[in-house]
Amino acid sequence: MTLIKRCVAELLGTFWLVLGGCGSAVLAASFTASGAKIGDNTLFPLGLGFVGVALAFGLTVLTMAYAIGHISGCHLNPAVSFGLWAGKRFPGSELLPYIASQVIGATIAAGLLYLIATGKEGFVLSGSNPLATNGFAEHSPGGYSLLAAFITEVVMTFMFLIIILGATDHRAPAGFAPIAIGLGLTLIHLISIPVTNTSVNPARSTGVAIFAGSELLAQTWLFWVAPILGAVLAGFFYNQFFSEPTIVRQRIKETV
Amino acid sequence: MTLIKRCVAELLGTFWLVLGGCGSAVLAASFTASGAKIGDNTLFPLGLGFVGVALAFGLTVLTMAYAIGHISGCHLNPAVSFGLWAGKRFPGSELLPYIASQVIGATIAAGLLYLIATGKEGFVLSGSNPLATNGFAEHSPGGYSLLAAFITEVVMTFMFLIIILGATDHRAPAGFAPIAIGLGLTLIHLISIPVTNTSVNPARSTGVAIFAGSELLAQTWLFWVAPILGAVLAGFFYNQFFSEPTIVRQRIKETV
Amino acid sequence: MTLIKRCVAELLGTFWLVLGGCGSAVLAASFTASGAKIGDNTLFPLGLGFVGVALAFGLTVLTMAYAIGHISGCHLNPAVSFGLWAGKRFPGSELLPYIASQVIGATIAAGLLYLIATGKEGFVLSGSNPLATNGFAEHSPGGYSLLAAFITEVVMTFMFLIIILGATDHRAPAGFAPIAIGLGLTLIHLISIPVTNTSVNPARSTGVAIFAGSELLAQTWLFWVAPILGAVLAGFFYNQFFSEPTIVRQRIKETV
Amino acid sequence: MTLIKRCVAELLGTFWLVLGGCGSAVLAASFTASGAKIGDNTLFPLGLGFVGVALAFGLTVLTMAYAIGHISGCHLNPAVSFGLWAGKRFPGSELLPYIASQVIGATIAAGLLYLIATGKEGFVLSGSNPLATNGFAEHSPGGYSLLAAFITEVVMTFMFLIIILGATDHRAPAGFAPIAIGLGLTLIHLISIPVTNTSVNPARSTGVAIFAGSELLAQTWLFWVAPILGAVLAGFFYNQFFSEPTIVRQRIKETV
Repeated sequence: MTLIKRCVAELLGTFWLVLGGCGSAVLAASFTASGAKIGDNTLFPLGLGFVGVALAFGLTVLTMAYAIGHISGCHLNPAVSFGLWAGKRFPGSELLPYIASQVIGATIAAGLLYLIATGKEGFVLSGSNPLATNGFAEHSPGGYSLLAAFITEVVMTFMFLIIILGATDHRAPAGFAPIAIGLGLTLIHLISIPVTNTSVNPARSTGVAIFAGSELLAQTWLFWVAPILGAVLAGFFYNQFFSEPTIVRQRIKETV
Repeated sequence: MTLIKRCVAELLGTFWLVLGGCGSAVLAASFTASGAKIGDNTLFPLGLGFVGVALAFGLTVLTMAYAIGHISGCHLNPAVSFGLWAGKRFPGSELLPYIASQVIGATIAAGLLYLIATGKEGFVLSGSNPLATNGFAEHSPGGYSLLAAFITEVVMTFMFLIIILGATDHRAPAGFAPIAIGLGLTLIHLISIPVTNTSVNPARSTGVAIFAGSELLAQTWLFWVAPILGAVLAGFFYNQFFSEPTIVRQRIKETV
Repeated sequence: MTLIKRCVAELLGTFWLVLGGCGSAVLAASFTASGAKIGDNTLFPLGLGFVGVALAFGLTVLTMAYAIGHISGCHLNPAVSFGLWAGKRFPGSELLPYIASQVIGATIAAGLLYLIATGKEGFVLSGSNPLATNGFAEHSPGGYSLLAAFITEVVMTFMFLIIILGATDHRAPAGFAPIAIGLGLTLIHLISIPVTNTSVNPARSTGVAIFAGSELLAQTWLFWVAPILGAVLAGFFYNQFFSEPTIVRQRIKETV
Repeated sequence: MTLIKRCVAELLGTFWLVLGGCGSAVLAASFTASGAKIGDNTLFPLGLGFVGVALAFGLTVLTMAYAIGHISGCHLNPAVSFGLWAGKRFPGSELLPYIASQVIGATIAAGLLYLIATGKEGFVLSGSNPLATNGFAEHSPGGYSLLAAFITEVVMTFMFLIIILGATDHRAPAGFAPIAIGLGLTLIHLISIPVTNTSVNPARSTGVAIFAGSELLAQTWLFWVAPILGAVLAGFFYNQFFSEPTIVRQRIKETV
């Protein structure tokens, strides 16, 4: 595959991650039935809640990893590209084109989502996290501090990369990595939506922030710094503790 | 397998997709406990909500793909048949028998579902989407416009076919495609139930609309045009960008 | 494996199906937080709802199919044993010991569940479906008629067996059958809990009915007749339409 | 892998189990939207409920089993280490270092979770199970007695080990064990959160109890005794009933 085709795959995949993950949150998270009632004055809570949104984010990665994993490796996330580089699985020379493609895909998805959302009369961007943006302090869904947000994003991305590096290790069973990685992202959302609305992905954060206004955009620095820091630490950690001795790996490569 | 047996498989599978997906929505989506209370006047929301309905639709495809994938390929959807044709994976000569079988299966399921639903005293077809029909504008669950509905169905079916074409590519790990495709359909429902009640499948839309009355049936044109358009675009797109050069593929076939 | 060891496996597996499926329904389905509130007088609905109960039933089968599939084939259900016999995958001479083991396992689980449930002060068997029993008419969770219940159980078990026979066909990808079958049972619950509380399994129905009183026990006939009828029909159907010609299968067996 | 590296893996994995499982419970289980309403005075229940928490616990094990299974075997649980020893799959000489690593990992995770949780203004440890601790009687979420709690933990851990021993048996399909084991832990939570808040893992219970105060810590004895008892019984049971005759196994090892 040429680099351009792999970049098309990364763009399309990140488009799907943002449209599916942020889209489910914006369109369906707190939907209530207009008809069915569960009490005198309470409508049935048909919406997804955090469980459904967490599932949606994870399934974007699971589906794309089976669909385009053989094209581009299916990073869909600048932090993942950096972490794989730190873990010596991805060449530094391709970081820039991959990350650019991811940010473009995320931005197109955010624009399309905004277009669809406005197809409902009376839609306005509102709340602490309009268009499912990430944030801290007054833009944390549960009101968590900058420090709590930073620590959470570093640790979650660290563990995300451990899952990715481990599940794609040649010693792990082949073919199952997309399940582990996709459901790993679901798990990360189950834990951390209340803290930062869960990023672990600078492209996803930036794409929707562009349409949500300057106040949200001003907080995206954290969702570049913390995820990439966590990812790079994980790359070094995995190589240090869990890799086979280089000489063994070399021999395997020669015989394969 | 003879064509007739493959058509039986498509009929049975699409029957299951509609009975399971639309059935869970009609029978169980907003069920409330008659006994358990969670407040002075609020019953416990036992029903499935959108998460459960999305899961049900996806699992009909996942289960059938393992059960009859080796018989007919398990399309269960005219848009999928068209998309696979555009992607050069399915002969045009079989489009008509496959699609006819799918529509018949969907219609039988809708009839059976109607029969079961009326086994509860006082059941009537009501609401904006009776019998889990698809719709737009006044028949969109969330009140989304025709334009938003059209765009959503095109994009969702486009991505559905990218998942199908990618996960069944010989370069993807073998055996996992039903998981990717089934959970992909779950994901599509998590995003788009509020917009159109999610179709991406003309047979599913038509089957239930037949029993829901002429107003709903009049909207089914969109759920033929938009999904098939999205699917065909995806077939061309995948072939253009993600396929191996024909010559390489030829060589692989010769050596296998 | 001797027959006695395979019967131990069936007993243990059916024990798990009833303890896990019915246990989650009895102990956790409509649990509400004592502290957290979501309004002036409404507690947070922490309980599982139908989605969680459906997941629990499916996961009992998924986990046991990987754990003891290589011991006994993991039927856990008299209807499944009958269906596999009709599909020529299981000898009729072993039907009786298998079914006896399943009923004993289900009954032990129901007794243990009753013991645990009474560990909470004030627990009494109550409601239309005490101890998660199955029923119709006045014992249908949603008030569905005998006819609707009968049809539903026949069709659901028919499709369950199609999934089982298809996913364990030698032409289906190896190793994935427990996922298809377990999640198939989840799907069946997502559709049909409101109708009969979902049986498709005579052992599961009988085990809990024994502890729930004579009125519920008097309805168990339907949950023997309908599931076994549906399963046997599926066995004949699969053999008729989806099996390879016998001569081809013979040749495969000889070369393997 | 050296023992030290395997212990690092166990520490990291158990850290993830507690941060993910207990973290989702503490941070997200009963979260309510500040904006969206579903009635005059009821907020939308966005939080995870038991289904989401059960999913989170299971996914910590599923993800780690694919990520570090090839490093340490991914026990993450003293009861699992004991059960594998009883089943003759793990040397007794390594029990102590494995268990120490697990308890340290769990404790670090509990400390980090406490730090993140306090990043929200007004957070205090409160309720019957602060920091998602396990308990019985007055510290059982549903008010279950000591006896019910003890029986539940013994039986749940017994079945957990049957799943583990069976799914990793060389006769089970390769590569799927993490799915069976992870979703098995999800299932166990779906059943038993109301009884003991679900432990089946002494390290997980001890880690969070350390930060939750002496009253909760005083109840942790049960969550060492009952799970280890259940696990050891399962090890003996599996070897007695489901193992192949030793002589057959010996022959297999020689030919592999």
